[in-house]
Amino acid sequence: MTKSPIYLDYAAATPIDAAVIKVMEPYYARQFYNPSATYHAAKVIRSAVTTARKEVAHWLGARSSEIIFTAGGTEANNLSIHGIMRRYPKANIVISSIEHESVQAPAAHYNYREVKVQSDGRVDLHDLDRKIDNQTALVSIMYANNEIGTVQPMRDIAKIIKAKQVERSREDPPLIFHSDACQAANYLDLHVARLGVDMLTLNGGKIYGPKQSGALYVKAGINLLPLIDGGGQEQGVRSGTENVAGIVGFATALQLAQTDRHQEAERLRSLQHYFFSELAKRLPKALINGSVKYRLPNNLHFTLPGTDNERLLIALDEAGVQAAAGSACSASDEMPSHVLSALGLGDDYAQASLRMTMGRQTSLDQLKAVISLLQQLTNRS
Amino acid sequence: MTKSPIYLDYAAATPIDAAVIKVMEPYYARQFYNPSATYHAAKVIRSAVTTARKEVAHWLGARSSEIIFTAGGTEANNLSIHGIMRRYPKANIVISSIEHESVQAPAAHYNYREVKVQSDGRVDLHDLDRKIDNQTALVSIMYANNEIGTVQPMRDIAKIIKAKQVERSREDPPLIFHSDACQAANYLDLHVARLGVDMLTLNGGKIYGPKQSGALYVKAGINLLPLIDGGGQEQGVRSGTENVAGIVGFATALQLAQTDRHQEAERLRSLQHYFFSELAKRLPKALINGSVKYRLPNNLHFTLPGTDNERLLIALDEAGVQAAAGSACSASDEMPSHVLSALGLGDDYAQASLRMTMGRQTSLDQLKAVISLLQQLTNRS
Repeated sequence: MTKSPIYLDYAAATPIDAAVIKVMEPYYARQFYNPSATYHAAKVIRSAVTTARKEVAHWLGARSSEIIFTAGGTEANNLSIHGIMRRYPKANIVISSIEHESVQAPAAHYNYREVKVQSDGRVDLHDLDRKIDNQTALVSIMYANNEIGTVQPMRDIAKIIKAKQVERSREDPPLIFHSDACQAANYLDLHVARLGVDMLTLNGGKIYGPKQSGALYVKAGINLLPLIDGGGQEQGVRSGTENVAGIVGFATALQLAQTDRHQEAERLRSLQHYFFSELAKRLPKALINGSVKYRLPNNLHFTLPGTDNERLLIALDEAGVQAAAGSACSASDEMPSHVLSALGLGDDYAQASLRMTMGRQTSLDQLKAVISLLQQLTNRS
Repeated sequence: MTKSPIYLDYAAATPIDAAVIKVMEPYYARQFYNPSATYHAAKVIRSAVTTARKEVAHWLGARSSEIIFTAGGTEANNLSIHGIMRRYPKANIVISSIEHESVQAPAAHYNYREVKVQSDGRVDLHDLDRKIDNQTALVSIMYANNEIGTVQPMRDIAKIIKAKQVERSREDPPLIFHSDACQAANYLDLHVARLGVDMLTLNGGKIYGPKQSGALYVKAGINLLPLIDGGGQEQGVRSGTENVAGIVGFATALQLAQTDRHQEAERLRSLQHYFFSELAKRLPKALINGSVKYRLPNNLHFTLPGTDNERLLIALDEAGVQAAAGSACSASDEMPSHVLSALGLGDDYAQASLRMTMGRQTSLDQLKAVISLLQQLTNRS
């Protein structure tokens, strides 16, 4: 084993990119002004926010006015759901059964319905079609899953939603398609028109940007109720003195991720292929969870039947490998993953599962070491 | 005039202290882990959050478990109000007529009542006593005002509230005292038991800490509904992967501010005295707004009758002086300040008013230059 730790939990947190740290620095002690102030120096800051908004909009093929900066992905998901559902108290919301807690929990405040996923983690489109009725105001289905990395058929989902929209009468609520793209933004296309989404959540902390930075894309014409009210910043939808360093850092992180996404996805795809092949050879009992084909290139989620993931994670950590059992967010509670349950996998199976998520520092040598280590550890037990 | 600008808008934004920038830095690219992860390196991060929470609790005389980290003061104010009022839909909320927009706007969602202030900006205690009834669940009165700097008689307010609490029956909602201490935290005592508050809002961006960092003190036993739901961080009250750099930076900023508060308050008090004395001598028509005695030491809010503050601010900016008309938050809209209206001051008067707020870099030489400049500019017009 190498001495420096092998970090394989990029879905939980990413280090801030050196270039991002650099663009944030001027806003700490020098260009610290309140962007709402009237003097010239504050207007310069305001224009930095405007530029960041344009950059983010660019990658989404959106207008600047459609970008709301938030303090992270969780806030953006909450804003999208409460912002719509509080407007239409009689309406229902449809989510997939493998959404992140920051979609599940706010959805649970309302009349909500879960769409089944297939055993590969992809949304059951027939079930989606069935679950949407003329009182559905919002469908929230994540672009790529945070645990198993499954990428959803966004355009097919959007098609179903669009067909339902046509059937609506004037008295019905609007039917809006929101997607949590927190895990997708490093590797996938974010063009909102191509995806067919009306709202999209982005999270700086997962794309080598600052934590609790992020944005919600909100298509023009959608009128969200604010979650956080006050001075009226962010078009009145997210009040609070802007975190300019965070906003500029987030925009830069998104730009870096999206610029390199094809190259980085290809590199990781080849590492992913190597890992899964080696796993099949050297730990033949191992099972991959979630679709192999429709999958984020950085996700390695697998089960080693008969092992205990808690023990395995401790042994891995001692050997310098930092990995996870499920999502970090729910790591502290003892509940088995709702994502694996939704795939039809039992608790025993879930408790023998590991999530390893790769990133910019992940190398072939690291994976070789991890495979050998897994082999050692499982032979031992 | 000196060449480098004279910044007199510290109530709108403060530069991040060099020591704060330094403590945040390790959490960007090295100790970037998700505090909820299970490996040792993540536990180190988790303990940094625990330490920060203890430090913040220390200055408030509170328990660590009573501190909820938020993404800024606006969020904390919203959380305190919605977190209580959504629990008690039939209850009412009492606020002062000079609250910040981040208290006013969420309060306006409910049955709310405004307590009058006297002409000096201090809350009318008789009116407070009258406005609270047995269906009042929450009283939110800011510790020190962001525009005119008026410091409220917190203990007298708390006494009235405590007397009302005793009268409550079991069927009534609880009666909770919240205070927005965003502007107070640099100069005043934050000990929650001495103040008699049940909830207290703090904001990193106003105390030389990072923007969109902050905390809400919530007295043990008070059960807030979350504003932002998900992974269950911050005791389930504020979900979202922790902004550890922001949390550590905020705690350090609070520590620096509270450690030096007596000394800095004294220094600024003497500058304030100088400024108001010179103003009286050299611009005798000038009028000070808000109590002179019960006032933040850094606040200079005054009216130069017959002048137009918009023009004056432009001229000041051109001469290198950065000041404000009212709060920066509402700077963009054309409405006259609700704070000055609440003092009984007309629109013409408000439009001849300036807010200058001093801070760590403010010097006597700067104030001398500003006084001379004001004299020049008003003689000219």
